[in-house]
Amino acid sequence: MISHQYTFRVVYSDTDQMGYVHHSNYAKYYETARWELFRSLDISYKVIEDSGFLLPVTSLSVKFIKPASYDQLLTVNTTLKAVRGARMIFSYEIVNEKDELINRGETILAFIRKDTRKPCHPPLLVLKALEDGNLI
Amino acid sequence: MISHQYTFRVVYSDTDQMGYVHHSNYAKYYETARWELFRSLDISYKVIEDSGFLLPVTSLSVKFIKPASYDQLLTVNTTLKAVRGARMIFSYEIVNEKDELINRGETILAFIRKDTRKPCHPPLLVLKALEDGNLI
Amino acid sequence: MISHQYTFRVVYSDTDQMGYVHHSNYAKYYETARWELFRSLDISYKVIEDSGFLLPVTSLSVKFIKPASYDQLLTVNTTLKAVRGARMIFSYEIVNEKDELINRGETILAFIRKDTRKPCHPPLLVLKALEDGNLI
Amino acid sequence: MISHQYTFRVVYSDTDQMGYVHHSNYAKYYETARWELFRSLDISYKVIEDSGFLLPVTSLSVKFIKPASYDQLLTVNTTLKAVRGARMIFSYEIVNEKDELINRGETILAFIRKDTRKPCHPPLLVLKALEDGNLI
Repeated sequence: MISHQYTFRVVYSDTDQMGYVHHSNYAKYYETARWELFRSLDISYKVIEDSGFLLPVTSLSVKFIKPASYDQLLTVNTTLKAVRGARMIFSYEIVNEKDELINRGETILAFIRKDTRKPCHPPLLVLKALEDGNLI
Repeated sequence: MISHQYTFRVVYSDTDQMGYVHHSNYAKYYETARWELFRSLDISYKVIEDSGFLLPVTSLSVKFIKPASYDQLLTVNTTLKAVRGARMIFSYEIVNEKDELINRGETILAFIRKDTRKPCHPPLLVLKALEDGNLI
Repeated sequence: MISHQYTFRVVYSDTDQMGYVHHSNYAKYYETARWELFRSLDISYKVIEDSGFLLPVTSLSVKFIKPASYDQLLTVNTTLKAVRGARMIFSYEIVNEKDELINRGETILAFIRKDTRKPCHPPLLVLKALEDGNLI
Repeated sequence: MISHQYTFRVVYSDTDQMGYVHHSNYAKYYETARWELFRSLDISYKVIEDSGFLLPVTSLSVKFIKPASYDQLLTVNTTLKAVRGARMIFSYEIVNEKDELINRGETILAFIRKDTRKPCHPPLLVLKALEDGNLI
């Protein structure tokens, strides 16, 4: 298991008229957080795409525990829980500045080849980075 | 159980560089679809907010089965599955123009009072509309 | 000059905590409105891309006259003002349900080839549709 | 004149199927950049709203010079050009990692009171911060 922390500030355009972050934005926060986890392993999602692979999300679940507000600093704790066949499973916990857990979620992603759009094993550059870190 | 169909065309800004709809947009599609279900019952989410209530999402799950593309006509089949205490549970199935199931999801929402931000029973205007339709 | 009217309902996720539509969304409304103008001429922006061309925005200007709110029906009056070399110039006026002018803007777009990403003349399918309508 | 630099990384969800940042996102980049300029003066836009004022955008113009891509580090150079009555005028220049100018724009914003939604002079906390820095 690999974990990573990503901290960011909530921008104005992510709020809605309830005065909180619109719930659709958490999927974006998860996305940025998991590619920052990748970056911490010296892999870049951009390089994965450039080398002929895509990693779309096949499943998303989110529990909204407390609202988040404009200008708050939020931290996403991301964990790569498992690599199984074509799939990678990530979980996320978001805490606010008071270290309160406000959100928890999970995504499953599956590697596909850019040309065929068919599922495939993780590219070697990903497997190598995980192996180098004794992560698989 | 109440069901409703909402059809819309995928706009360009909802795509990403994979060439498909970005996965964060489905939560927005669900949102518009459930308020159109409400509209079909002569309730408007705007009137609910104007009368002092909010209905935030507390849980979201999405299965991405097939990708959706720019300019496709998608139809969201929305079902109000249950009303329990402060909570309403909706499920969604999205089909494309070929009537292929491309996406399936569920959201749980909870009524809160705008002033106290505390959970509360559904406002009378909602209960009345559901009762009038023999829906609860 | 060709004009077209496109009417749509403001969705919840387009609002921000001021209680109005966030200003970044108007560029999206313009975009959908101009491709609906194209559709009214039996051209589809999708077909333009599929035939090897892209039409990115090179210039955008927007005047925000009155705010727009959730659930309002807005109408975008779009005009294709000119086709000059690679460029197409569109203007937009948005009115609300009371027929009040709330927003006015202009975009310039330029055809480029998908393969070279270099500017080019409008593809024949676009010129033909404009000529058939005595529009150029 | 006050200037500020804000650097950020382009996230995946900001791209569209052209493979570049969708043009509607620049208004969001400008927004975050100008509140970071405010933060550098020890003013926070959140505090402005909390003290009873709003600062909506009344005019936006953008020139798109070169495209931006996923994962690039972009820097917004923001300048507060003028404070006139209720209005603040900001200009923006965005450069990429190669220090190429890719985008240039301007926004006009106008202070309004949250309760009346009428234009008003800048709140004292803003004027004081500008005066302290010999900026007005």
